Amino acid sequence: MMAGTSVGVGGVTTPQGYRASGSSAGIKADNGLDLALLVSDTPATAAAVFTTNRAQAAPILISREHLSASGGVARAIVVNSGCANACTGDEGLDAAREMAAETARLVRCSVAEVLVASTGVIGVALPMGKIRAALPAAFRGLGNDHGSLAARAIMTTDPFPKEAAAEVKIGSRTIRIGGMAKGSGMIEPMLATMLGFITTDADVPQPLLARALREAVDDSFNAITVDGECSTNDSVMLLANGASGASINVGNCDAFVDGLSAVCRELAMGIVRGGEGATKLVTITVTGAASALEARRAAKAIANSLLVKTAIHGGDPNWGRLIAVAGRANVAFELSRAAVMIGAITLFRNGRPYDEAAAEAAEYLKGTEIAVSVDLGSGSASSTVWTCDLSAEYVRINAEYRT
Amino acid sequence: MMAGTSVGVGGVTTPQGYRASGSSAGIKADNGLDLALLVSDTPATAAAVFTTNRAQAAPILISREHLSASGGVARAIVVNSGCANACTGDEGLDAAREMAAETARLVRCSVAEVLVASTGVIGVALPMGKIRAALPAAFRGLGNDHGSLAARAIMTTDPFPKEAAAEVKIGSRTIRIGGMAKGSGMIEPMLATMLGFITTDADVPQPLLARALREAVDDSFNAITVDGECSTNDSVMLLANGASGASINVGNCDAFVDGLSAVCRELAMGIVRGGEGATKLVTITVTGAASALEARRAAKAIANSLLVKTAIHGGDPNWGRLIAVAGRANVAFELSRAAVMIGAITLFRNGRPYDEAAAEAAEYLKGTEIAVSVDLGSGSASSTVWTCDLSAEYVRINAEYRT
Repeated sequence: MMAGTSVGVGGVTTPQGYRASGSSAGIKADNGLDLALLVSDTPATAAAVFTTNRAQAAPILISREHLSASGGVARAIVVNSGCANACTGDEGLDAAREMAAETARLVRCSVAEVLVASTGVIGVALPMGKIRAALPAAFRGLGNDHGSLAARAIMTTDPFPKEAAAEVKIGSRTIRIGGMAKGSGMIEPMLATMLGFITTDADVPQPLLARALREAVDDSFNAITVDGECSTNDSVMLLANGASGASINVGNCDAFVDGLSAVCRELAMGIVRGGEGATKLVTITVTGAASALEARRAAKAIANSLLVKTAIHGGDPNWGRLIAVAGRANVAFELSRAAVMIGAITLFRNGRPYDEAAAEAAEYLKGTEIAVSVDLGSGSASSTVWTCDLSAEYVRINAEYRT
Repeated sequence: MMAGTSVGVGGVTTPQGYRASGSSAGIKADNGLDLALLVSDTPATAAAVFTTNRAQAAPILISREHLSASGGVARAIVVNSGCANACTGDEGLDAAREMAAETARLVRCSVAEVLVASTGVIGVALPMGKIRAALPAAFRGLGNDHGSLAARAIMTTDPFPKEAAAEVKIGSRTIRIGGMAKGSGMIEPMLATMLGFITTDADVPQPLLARALREAVDDSFNAITVDGECSTNDSVMLLANGASGASINVGNCDAFVDGLSAVCRELAMGIVRGGEGATKLVTITVTGAASALEARRAAKAIANSLLVKTAIHGGDPNWGRLIAVAGRANVAFELSRAAVMIGAITLFRNGRPYDEAAAEAAEYLKGTEIAVSVDLGSGSASSTVWTCDLSAEYVRINAEYRT
């Protein structure tokens, strides 16, 4: 992170000129918060990345349509939890359109300036009547300090809300970047992520904004996995309304990307920490790879390995499983030059085990923040990804999700 | 299966001219059976397929070496469970060589005519002293009705032994094919499998034997997954000693492949039924794929999906998860033409859910043999793979494997 960025407490209403609300539309069976509204006081430049899943949910299709029609300008984002509005056919598309239209009517903007997102069960019709009835109250509830309520309203199985904010010095001015995100299952975003919403009061030209978002997402949301599943609804949306008076251009873009990356990384870590059934945050670093692509591929294979995740859950320094996954990850791998470290403890190097260190590694694995590194012995590229352990609680959550 | 094949009870000693034993060398902490010996009375033609994991265990390297040196002839296979002899360096290679040499001395054959296999914990030195001490008793214990003992001696976390046999009419003669296999974790063989040993009393030229084995393995061991993990030790070995007097040639090879496939499929099904923590056998069929490769890829992605496996475990007819996996499987997929069936019950077709059938599907999911099919709506190719559900017991087994 560069000197100009400071990460702190905050969320989507930390930057100037944004208001948010979180309310209950009665979509969730328990009547919890399930409707989030985020409005910029003035039209904001907008960029987004969406799931690469070929089964794209209705809100994804409609948000893409609106971003294209508005030329990358948005005033509002409306989000519901409790229902993904995915695999719901033409009816689902109509519902997503209506959700945007109702919001536009309240905000008094064009419908193309409203982005929509949904998360929850796939294949269930969106209860549009409930959302239509609840939107006026959501609009009245908007406040420039209600980011936390919105962050809670987008949660499904998440054990806690995910928010982050950063301040970045741009010349003599300070801009703010704030965000919120939700997990916590069906998480291995592919060129996109689960729901993430980020605001900034910088003024950023759309092409630059889009590029900055792609860069920031690549080493944050795209570098995490809970269960190897890419959702039908993954979206990260970024609004830039210029309220700080600071403008981003090619010359000072690095500082902006740095701050944006810091916020995305915080949110992404939060998703992993709050992964379904998770008890440990696991940082996996692969070194000695033939290319950055192979480093990432091996790191993701390790991060998704049930045997690695259950061993870490059980506190077992079973480095053989790490080697076995690296060996099957379809990357260059030289057993005789490979190495495995758990924390700072070497367990395998130059073709030979160091099992005398196993007790120390087992002690280290009792912690809740675990680092694991594997050297493929095949080059100099590296990659880091984040995941969580796999617990019996994960199975319970997902065996009983709809019942 | 062709008319000429009948599948029945039996194992590696069902074909004529084979003897086996299962004994305890004290490698396993509980002093269970952990040493299997399989001997053909006469030199047998041999073929094998091995793991594609780049971290290959010592017994894999030595068995490859021996198969090549002997020109595809073997008299004996010696197998230990409780220790994989993988990632054990030069010492591990020496141990695997000595295991073969000791066996060759007892059997009175050349060392190149002995194949070796190991399964168990990775990265632990093979206790060669114990194996050396136990081999003479293993040799004295050989019997032509001891296939079942050998099948038990190759088990690790397997809840039950896997054996199968078939009879095939070749002209006026009958040949037998028998096999044994073990699972039950680290199971997604890639062009190979976990340990499988198959015998036949047919006389089969080596190139034909190798081809037949590859064909049979492709739709059996290579079509199963328990946890998406490819082991360092996967091997399937096939011996053909000609004791039946029947010869296989290009003209009658189909009948032989058919019988061999039936035995491999039985063993593969057994591995899945006995998968770690498994409570259900799940048959996943993908239809409407653009190619056979894509059909297999999508079926494997579904079979390895934690969300699908936990939903089936919980008896939840959550077809949305099946669509979500098909959509991210990197295959051609058309949501509007896709379909999902659980058993014979359609839950999604032509872009619309049939949730009125959910209760019936939930009832069906209470069974222990579950069929799921997904139509990708993109072509006419199909593929079937087999997997099991994911239970909290799986996590328990793998979190505590070494402790």
